[in-house]
Amino acid sequence: MDLLASRSSRMKASEIRELLKLLDQPDIISFAGGIPDPSLFPSAAITEAYASVLAGAEAGAALQYQVSEGYLPLRRWLVGLMGKLGVACDEGNILITSGSQQGLDYLGKLFLSPGDTALVTWPTYLGALQAFNAYEPRYDRLTPDGGNMTPAAYRAGAAANGGRPKFAYLVPDFANPTGETLNRKQREAVLDLAGELDIAVIEDAAYRALRYDGEAVPPILALDCARSGGIDKARTIYCGSFSKILSPGMRVGWICAPRAVIEKLVLMKQASDLHSPSINQMVMHRAAENVFEGQVEKLIGAYGARRDALLGALEAHMPDGVTWSRPEGGMFVWVTLPEGTDATELLARSVKEARVAFVPGNAFYADGTGRNTLRLSFTLADHRAVSEGIPRLAALLK
Amino acid sequence: MDLLASRSSRMKASEIRELLKLLDQPDIISFAGGIPDPSLFPSAAITEAYASVLAGAEAGAALQYQVSEGYLPLRRWLVGLMGKLGVACDEGNILITSGSQQGLDYLGKLFLSPGDTALVTWPTYLGALQAFNAYEPRYDRLTPDGGNMTPAAYRAGAAANGGRPKFAYLVPDFANPTGETLNRKQREAVLDLAGELDIAVIEDAAYRALRYDGEAVPPILALDCARSGGIDKARTIYCGSFSKILSPGMRVGWICAPRAVIEKLVLMKQASDLHSPSINQMVMHRAAENVFEGQVEKLIGAYGARRDALLGALEAHMPDGVTWSRPEGGMFVWVTLPEGTDATELLARSVKEARVAFVPGNAFYADGTGRNTLRLSFTLADHRAVSEGIPRLAALLK
Repeated sequence: MDLLASRSSRMKASEIRELLKLLDQPDIISFAGGIPDPSLFPSAAITEAYASVLAGAEAGAALQYQVSEGYLPLRRWLVGLMGKLGVACDEGNILITSGSQQGLDYLGKLFLSPGDTALVTWPTYLGALQAFNAYEPRYDRLTPDGGNMTPAAYRAGAAANGGRPKFAYLVPDFANPTGETLNRKQREAVLDLAGELDIAVIEDAAYRALRYDGEAVPPILALDCARSGGIDKARTIYCGSFSKILSPGMRVGWICAPRAVIEKLVLMKQASDLHSPSINQMVMHRAAENVFEGQVEKLIGAYGARRDALLGALEAHMPDGVTWSRPEGGMFVWVTLPEGTDATELLARSVKEARVAFVPGNAFYADGTGRNTLRLSFTLADHRAVSEGIPRLAALLK
Repeated sequence: MDLLASRSSRMKASEIRELLKLLDQPDIISFAGGIPDPSLFPSAAITEAYASVLAGAEAGAALQYQVSEGYLPLRRWLVGLMGKLGVACDEGNILITSGSQQGLDYLGKLFLSPGDTALVTWPTYLGALQAFNAYEPRYDRLTPDGGNMTPAAYRAGAAANGGRPKFAYLVPDFANPTGETLNRKQREAVLDLAGELDIAVIEDAAYRALRYDGEAVPPILALDCARSGGIDKARTIYCGSFSKILSPGMRVGWICAPRAVIEKLVLMKQASDLHSPSINQMVMHRAAENVFEGQVEKLIGAYGARRDALLGALEAHMPDGVTWSRPEGGMFVWVTLPEGTDATELLARSVKEARVAFVPGNAFYADGTGRNTLRLSFTLADHRAVSEGIPRLAALLK
């Protein structure tokens, strides 16, 4: 999730409060939220699944404590999903988490001691920075599109801060916030670097199923399994989520990883909240079995059209000097303004004068740079929002 | 929760596996689990609440992301509950957590740096030790029934370990594992000590509503508010849970604390799992409004009778030299065996020869002592379990 409030940690609290007040007003057109369109939730299937779980033989178990690993039939269903993605595994490689956000928190807790180094892209998912920040890391810059520093340089930078590089975190498909996707060569390069540094790779796959065109690239975990000889020898930890496909409010995600990692995470899960809600895991299992594929198709149709409309409006209205990403999937378009333009200042003007909201990009940079960038989400952007909002935003930039 | 597996961290893994295999066998009578009786869940009310939430105007919100603080009507309902317990507060003093276990994890994260000291009773809730252990504290012994060390001695012990005392954690009502309840004077003494040390008090109130006889004692938080002048000046943090009354599998608990503490915990919640499941919070709100009080009455009747039966059987069958607690509520009776008897060894014999299971007590001691103690849970102990199981266990001790 990334509502405006959580995205803008580097804005002053008073500014945020002021802007949030404005967002409540019905005439504001918002591209700020990073949330799915609730009108597309498979509500009927989920309603039916709650009713049938609570009417069936497992009703008692649905309301009772559950093992920390998670509901076994759901883990088995996920083994099948991961298999289709090229990751041969079994239920011992799967932990159910309360959304992939919880997976990121656990992985921060597992790997990071204060002063250790986490490699992340500039920019990266702000929720990951928030999860890792609790464990007080230093960040260094990962550039999967080429030009990574040498392993020795990464190590030296980490040592100068009193720690070691511990993992590389990235969103390889339709990244939040940029919408960009790594090709196979870039994924292999991340694995090469991680191998040389002997560190883990955290693959945040929250948007993976939402591909609107182009060809799917194998998950980093699948490439890792192929080169290392199987999941239990891999260094990649895959964080998946049902939030973008079925429902974020049920908070069901998963981690797929080597068994030795899962065993440690299960103990962490037990100590931190015992287990994710039993009933939601059972319902998600039924809903996934019944509607996952159809739901993916439906979202590809709806969100793909919204992406096209947004890209078309940017093309038609944005002045020279403004550039943007052309994502093959996901939820976001990343806009780069002319050097020297401050997107936070633009937001303040935009909500007041143009009645349009977005997320300033610098919140996504571990080093606080990127002030001339902004993120637009198109999942809630209907025809009117795009056809009226983008010209109004563009006019401010002319 | 405390299934045998989680309670016995100090037993060898191979021993635990062996015992767990036996527990699966239908002829084992188990007093080991620390879980509610699923046949007493208010399943009809919960089923109705899921259906009506998903059929109503809030269906979209039930499946969508939610604010990290939690669903406002549920927080308001809890303001009412806390008010009845003598704690005047508002929704800014309430955070919804995924069970009270998550509250303990967050409080460990908030207060403890490696080497700091947490004061806990000997024995205490093992799940609390597991939650706190992630933050690498030292433990010192809290003795609310009298004879606490001087503040200077606590401070000196903590300083020798390179940290400071950070909080006192306790379960004041029908404690897990002992079943014991602190009287008002003992609660005031804990507040006195915490005031002298200037540390927080974590009041784990998981069993509070389950009182079968005797008179309720005010929560430590209520006593703290009375002496400090209001919740925002208090040092006590109250962890509540719906798990023992309505359903543990939905994972809904809460923290009631000074607003400044809640504000920090909300940021922690956002970074760790964004929010507890929206739909479960909405359903718990409806179920709590409709059946909370009736459910408390029903459980008092059922569990109270089981407690009486267990105490009666212990009285009738246990040999001299064995003593036990007489809890006024909750789920547990604590048994002390003659000095020199090892409850872990007894468990191994008991499951093999008597086909009776319980939890050896030393797992609950931060210092690993208490080898001659054991915990019996009566929530799942029906007439047959008690009338056959206790004589068989007692025979082993003769």
